[in-house]
Amino acid sequence: MTAYHEFTLNDAIDFARRHYRGFAAGAALSAEEVGDGNLNRVFRVSDPQGQGVIVKQALPYIRCIGEGWPLTRQRAAREARVLLRHGELSPHGTLALLHHDDTLSALLLEDLSHWQLWRRALLETDEPESVATALGQHLARVLYGTSDFQVPSAIKRAEVVRLANPELCATTDTVFFHDPYRPGERNRVPPGLESDAAALWRDRELKHRVAHLRLRFQCNAEALLHGDLHTGSVFVREGECRVFDAEFGFYGPMGFDMGLVMANLLLNFCAQSGWRDAGAAEAARFARVEELRRLWKAFSEDFLARARTTSAPLLGEPGVAGEWVQQVWRDSLGFAGTEMIRRTIGIAHVADLDDIADPAQRQDCQRQALWLGRRLILEAATLSPVSLCGELRRLAAGEPVSGNGDQGMDSLPRGAWKRVRR
Amino acid sequence: MTAYHEFTLNDAIDFARRHYRGFAAGAALSAEEVGDGNLNRVFRVSDPQGQGVIVKQALPYIRCIGEGWPLTRQRAAREARVLLRHGELSPHGTLALLHHDDTLSALLLEDLSHWQLWRRALLETDEPESVATALGQHLARVLYGTSDFQVPSAIKRAEVVRLANPELCATTDTVFFHDPYRPGERNRVPPGLESDAAALWRDRELKHRVAHLRLRFQCNAEALLHGDLHTGSVFVREGECRVFDAEFGFYGPMGFDMGLVMANLLLNFCAQSGWRDAGAAEAARFARVEELRRLWKAFSEDFLARARTTSAPLLGEPGVAGEWVQQVWRDSLGFAGTEMIRRTIGIAHVADLDDIADPAQRQDCQRQALWLGRRLILEAATLSPVSLCGELRRLAAGEPVSGNGDQGMDSLPRGAWKRVRR
Repeated sequence: MTAYHEFTLNDAIDFARRHYRGFAAGAALSAEEVGDGNLNRVFRVSDPQGQGVIVKQALPYIRCIGEGWPLTRQRAAREARVLLRHGELSPHGTLALLHHDDTLSALLLEDLSHWQLWRRALLETDEPESVATALGQHLARVLYGTSDFQVPSAIKRAEVVRLANPELCATTDTVFFHDPYRPGERNRVPPGLESDAAALWRDRELKHRVAHLRLRFQCNAEALLHGDLHTGSVFVREGECRVFDAEFGFYGPMGFDMGLVMANLLLNFCAQSGWRDAGAAEAARFARVEELRRLWKAFSEDFLARARTTSAPLLGEPGVAGEWVQQVWRDSLGFAGTEMIRRTIGIAHVADLDDIADPAQRQDCQRQALWLGRRLILEAATLSPVSLCGELRRLAAGEPVSGNGDQGMDSLPRGAWKRVRR
Repeated sequence: MTAYHEFTLNDAIDFARRHYRGFAAGAALSAEEVGDGNLNRVFRVSDPQGQGVIVKQALPYIRCIGEGWPLTRQRAAREARVLLRHGELSPHGTLALLHHDDTLSALLLEDLSHWQLWRRALLETDEPESVATALGQHLARVLYGTSDFQVPSAIKRAEVVRLANPELCATTDTVFFHDPYRPGERNRVPPGLESDAAALWRDRELKHRVAHLRLRFQCNAEALLHGDLHTGSVFVREGECRVFDAEFGFYGPMGFDMGLVMANLLLNFCAQSGWRDAGAAEAARFARVEELRRLWKAFSEDFLARARTTSAPLLGEPGVAGEWVQQVWRDSLGFAGTEMIRRTIGIAHVADLDDIADPAQRQDCQRQALWLGRRLILEAATLSPVSLCGELRRLAAGEPVSGNGDQGMDSLPRGAWKRVRR
């Protein structure tokens, strides 16, 4: 058909008109570019009644860096495969894919512009409706449903191949497990955190733990992951959620998806004092802890309920699924820690921290995120869901937090934390 | 070219003449079928001087079961890829692949018929020369060399895809992790072991541990494995070894290859009293323990020496490779246990046990193999190399062996073991 070319607004309109059946024939369509992502162009095409559809096209490079970091357009096909598979397993948790054109590297997607990005909701609303339970159940559906608990051996191994994503996984590997742990030009260390970053780069115990997380990321093909499940990859409305932007999807360790959601709740937790007054910030911090708790509860209960019906050889033996879920928890804490660190000093930051207006307050929040991330990694093997939530609540309220000597929360710069809560 | 057809002797000669440069032009070649494998036809083609070459052709079903268990011929291409990759990394440990024809599913291979099969050497020779060090180093070369310690992220992930083997991995999954743990028509429970097998099928703690091993087998793409590394897959001569029959190769947990070698040494250990008089049997048992010790020492030292030079992100941090090798050890014990169990009561047995002439003695040896396999699985997390070898030496000498109550070696039927040593 048509050779690949970067879409203009008119190309996006043509693409939508050709493949979307929801517009009236001959309707006057208009398009606007709505993407703020790093890898793609995203357009909203709509008719005069305001009904719309999304056109997403992969660019042959990482947009925020430019043509110096080339990236094949195959990721559009990869995203399509992940959205379809996750959509089969969790239609109410996954953005609907309406059409995919491989030649143009273009996707036609459900328009949820009347929904809210979860990250914006968490930042801009004092009491956003919680989607934690819905998202936890979504994760249980897609992770369980693509795992050895559900899928027969040969089919699952073929799926690992079909959904392989070596190129974008190498990007994830670099930005999660390489760049943030050494000085390097791709890092964006915030002003004032230079010595914190330098201390982290010298922290052998931390790097030792992250090395094992890296090996799990590289080796463990447990389930089909979204692969980049931060709060900006989730639309929310009235307690419902729809996950999108799945181009980083691959078969990996379940805790990577779960950990990224937890990390982004905790980045928001760390940022609250930069966004609202002390009382509201404290309430919001408590709300994030409660969301983390509900997210894990929904995921683990739903996963274990499904596992009780597994017909996979041996995996229904008593205790197997329970220990599996405990390992997912430990992985989640570790990967959450790596996300918090890389979102603070690596190449790609989050608005929660970077958009704090006051420089001193921003710096305090960033420092706290860095140190909370470090602690999750170092204590992943010993923190239970109950003990983590308990310590986070004490931290939310500004109380002293127990910890293993200088590896614990006590090693947080206490003054900085108090300043955050002023 | 030529369509696929099952080779006659003349076809094998034609294939060898066409692709092997070692024969003189016009030499009178003869062929004989030499294979006793389950999946293939294997021919030796030789000239009047006795110089030979091997022709191996994949059949479209599992030979020992017949056309009722179909299996695609793609495994010839898969074996070729594994032999080539392992041959690059360990040319002196891998049988040389001289040619591969995808259409005919045929391989032309180095002829080592003047070498000995390791299994035969271990059974028929009182003091076979040890190849344990050579094989341990071979395993370090190929497992390290295909792992994240050596191979950059995107390339390794592409290799996992290129060397995927869903079909034969599903067969391995079935014969290792499914059939042996339940009654079923594919099992071949030896006469007299019916109640032992039934006890094993009721053993929830064992099945629980095997479930976790199954998950590691299914999920952990750590390195390119041989995938079926028993002592019948290794030619030996003068302290050297060459590994062959790599059609089960895939990216899996390193301990699976190591564990199968260990298991086959221990199956031989358990079988000794059926093959020679008491004194020679005891000496042979001690020799097997020493081989296991050297195998692990060579592997772990070579792996760790290589890891000291790794440039992989974070994996050179102090302690990382050491902990990795410890995990490989634990996996090896567990997988060794599953191999010992499935080779005793599953579909495919070993000559070490089954060829023992005296029925009562055979039964005792089989029973010991079953229970040693069980113990390796249950105690994989706590047995160090030193403690395992110490206990095996006591077992070799007929001394009491410590153990964790009825999970330990003490739960072996003592009378049976004494009878074995008569």
